[in-house]
Amino acid sequence: MKNEPARVRTGLPENLTQRFAHRAAHMKPSEIRSLFAVASRPEIVSLAGGMPNLSALPMEMMASVVQKLILDNGAEALQYGSGQGHPRLREQICEMMALEGIRAHPDDVIVTTGSQQALDLISRIFIDPDDVVLVEAPSYVGALGTFRQYEAKVVHVAMDDHGLIPDALREAIAATRAAGRKIKFLYLIPNYQNPAGVLLPAERRTEILDICREEKIFVVEDNPYGLLGFDKPSPNAMRAEDSENVIYLGSFSKTIAPGFRVGWALVPQSLKEKLVIASESSILCPSNFTQLAISSYLADQPWRDQIASFAKLYKVRRDVALESLDKYFPKNATWTKPAGGFYIWVTLPPEIDTNALVPKAIVAKVAYVPGTAFYADGFGSWSLRLSYCHPTPERIKEGIKALSGVIKDEMEQRSIN
Amino acid sequence: MKNEPARVRTGLPENLTQRFAHRAAHMKPSEIRSLFAVASRPEIVSLAGGMPNLSALPMEMMASVVQKLILDNGAEALQYGSGQGHPRLREQICEMMALEGIRAHPDDVIVTTGSQQALDLISRIFIDPDDVVLVEAPSYVGALGTFRQYEAKVVHVAMDDHGLIPDALREAIAATRAAGRKIKFLYLIPNYQNPAGVLLPAERRTEILDICREEKIFVVEDNPYGLLGFDKPSPNAMRAEDSENVIYLGSFSKTIAPGFRVGWALVPQSLKEKLVIASESSILCPSNFTQLAISSYLADQPWRDQIASFAKLYKVRRDVALESLDKYFPKNATWTKPAGGFYIWVTLPPEIDTNALVPKAIVAKVAYVPGTAFYADGFGSWSLRLSYCHPTPERIKEGIKALSGVIKDEMEQRSIN
Repeated sequence: MKNEPARVRTGLPENLTQRFAHRAAHMKPSEIRSLFAVASRPEIVSLAGGMPNLSALPMEMMASVVQKLILDNGAEALQYGSGQGHPRLREQICEMMALEGIRAHPDDVIVTTGSQQALDLISRIFIDPDDVVLVEAPSYVGALGTFRQYEAKVVHVAMDDHGLIPDALREAIAATRAAGRKIKFLYLIPNYQNPAGVLLPAERRTEILDICREEKIFVVEDNPYGLLGFDKPSPNAMRAEDSENVIYLGSFSKTIAPGFRVGWALVPQSLKEKLVIASESSILCPSNFTQLAISSYLADQPWRDQIASFAKLYKVRRDVALESLDKYFPKNATWTKPAGGFYIWVTLPPEIDTNALVPKAIVAKVAYVPGTAFYADGFGSWSLRLSYCHPTPERIKEGIKALSGVIKDEMEQRSIN
Repeated sequence: MKNEPARVRTGLPENLTQRFAHRAAHMKPSEIRSLFAVASRPEIVSLAGGMPNLSALPMEMMASVVQKLILDNGAEALQYGSGQGHPRLREQICEMMALEGIRAHPDDVIVTTGSQQALDLISRIFIDPDDVVLVEAPSYVGALGTFRQYEAKVVHVAMDDHGLIPDALREAIAATRAAGRKIKFLYLIPNYQNPAGVLLPAERRTEILDICREEKIFVVEDNPYGLLGFDKPSPNAMRAEDSENVIYLGSFSKTIAPGFRVGWALVPQSLKEKLVIASESSILCPSNFTQLAISSYLADQPWRDQIASFAKLYKVRRDVALESLDKYFPKNATWTKPAGGFYIWVTLPPEIDTNALVPKAIVAKVAYVPGTAFYADGFGSWSLRLSYCHPTPERIKEGIKALSGVIKDEMEQRSIN
């Protein structure tokens, strides 16, 4: 870098805070950002991040897919595209969603820069400051961050080993409305939830849909892991039962690869135009190149087999993780038993502060995400999330063993049995 | 599409408007959206869209760049990446900006999904409802749309054939402040402006920078066309003179290809963290795949020569467009003479309504964008934008000839001489 000047740190310009928008006060670094930087060091076993394991992806095949795409159709692939997303990919997305019982029209699909952008757009069209969003307790850290930027008030709804509890949802709605607040939507991840790893059974899906339809609350169904069930297919998507009140979010990040940044929203017709306009204002259009790369892959390659390979790879890792937890973890810890996806949620005795344990875990060469990251309200300090998706099985075992040592030491120091 | 159901149009759910956020009222279809759909028909000469002409891009080379990227580095290219953007690409971006006199540190660069996303993020951190954004008159339609979604009040500042007029800027600032409104930033396109095609000279750049620094108004310098000057290099970027008060937006859409959706913002250090957090909330991270495709291209290919080929291609088209305007257009029309970029701004007698002429132009097989699209306040009805970037020179001549016929007919009917 010949042109790299010396940097003079000058601090914030005079009155800068006053020059920001009100919402900027909510843009603070996530507590797990610095953790991920440390966790990516090679000597650390990272059970922290949710990076898909791409070792199962045949790179020669992907390389020839993108090469052929540009040779055959470069003038389209490298040009601006439609704000709503490429029509051919939107058709293929409908075919993929049919695997989970969804009957959808490509006109109601909006392709986004990963499903994170869909979350952003939905927040944009719905959330005024202080509006309430209902979310599972715990919930996906990236969704919480987005809701916070739109100045929503997040209300957590209790879960158990079978996901969101319908009665808890009824109570949360009643209490929120009694407090005079507007509820904009329920956000949930029914399949192999992030971070809890639990699966919402079909009956609960129906019950939750009934509640939300009756209460006029949109359901935002986030489903990145639905095709990654280990032993049997996931129950039908909630959107399969209700096309008018469910906003469905999908992603290729876990079924193909996240580096393309292609996700989508399938929305009730009444919302489509606003979402497309919001997306055009946000990014003009999604990348034709990455959309068509995925489209070519879906058209020409055995993508169902590829998803099965991914699921198999993750199942092996889930098995090792659960075996290692059984073998090494203290008896007064409990954890979920995921039937798919990437994550296990561990609950320790309430005296243990999993944030405070992070540095000790790093010294022991293992990283995880403390439970508080998945709550908007500071709860979760004696929980943690383990991701088994990325490391090798041997490393997972090693990491869980190391972490159990850290936890047992802490319990001993605190005389917890 | 086996799974495509019949669609039942049910209209908006009960009270839907009340369920949207306040800002959603500003999400309306752009007046030029339907125009672009018509303009893309093959029989129409489109002088409407700003699609780069990719005929100068060697597709075999691009195909092998992306193939090699996945073969050599697929595990990184197809994985999640940094929210701020890939460090190697951020270094190369600094090298490219050095061509316009900018000395920058890669730490201050944020890679975005096209520079449209940078516009969105800047709006997000700065704009509260009713805050004022100063923009050129006329200005880029996509920026106006974004400012509208953030509920800004857009105040246009007069331009002449040399771009924004510094005295008009002084007056606009004084009048806006006298009305008790907060000004958040000045947005401008100094090089070959969209839609006016004009170039802001170096002395005006300095004067405008001085005004804005003194008045504590950030300058958002949008520069997609800066390297596409036809006869001599553009003046130094405004950011080259002021690293503390200028937010610079760049893009590879016009120098390489828009289908990658890679742009960037170079920001004062004081803004970087908020912008990165806003971007992570919006898209998690930009695509590693498209970033590394561009990075490989910049590292291994003669990209300066490629930009020179693009400039040559556009210069030929600019020449034909100006010759055709001289030859065919009525004497009481005036137009700008772009020294680079994609656009010519045509001003007709004020009795002519260029919106009303669109259907007649389409019948005559030519499309343009009416001037009102580039104003937030309904002004511009007797102006229009011509894009010469995409059609062949023969088609440009044909289109301008056809359009002149439509305009002359209208003038005759209205007895305008």
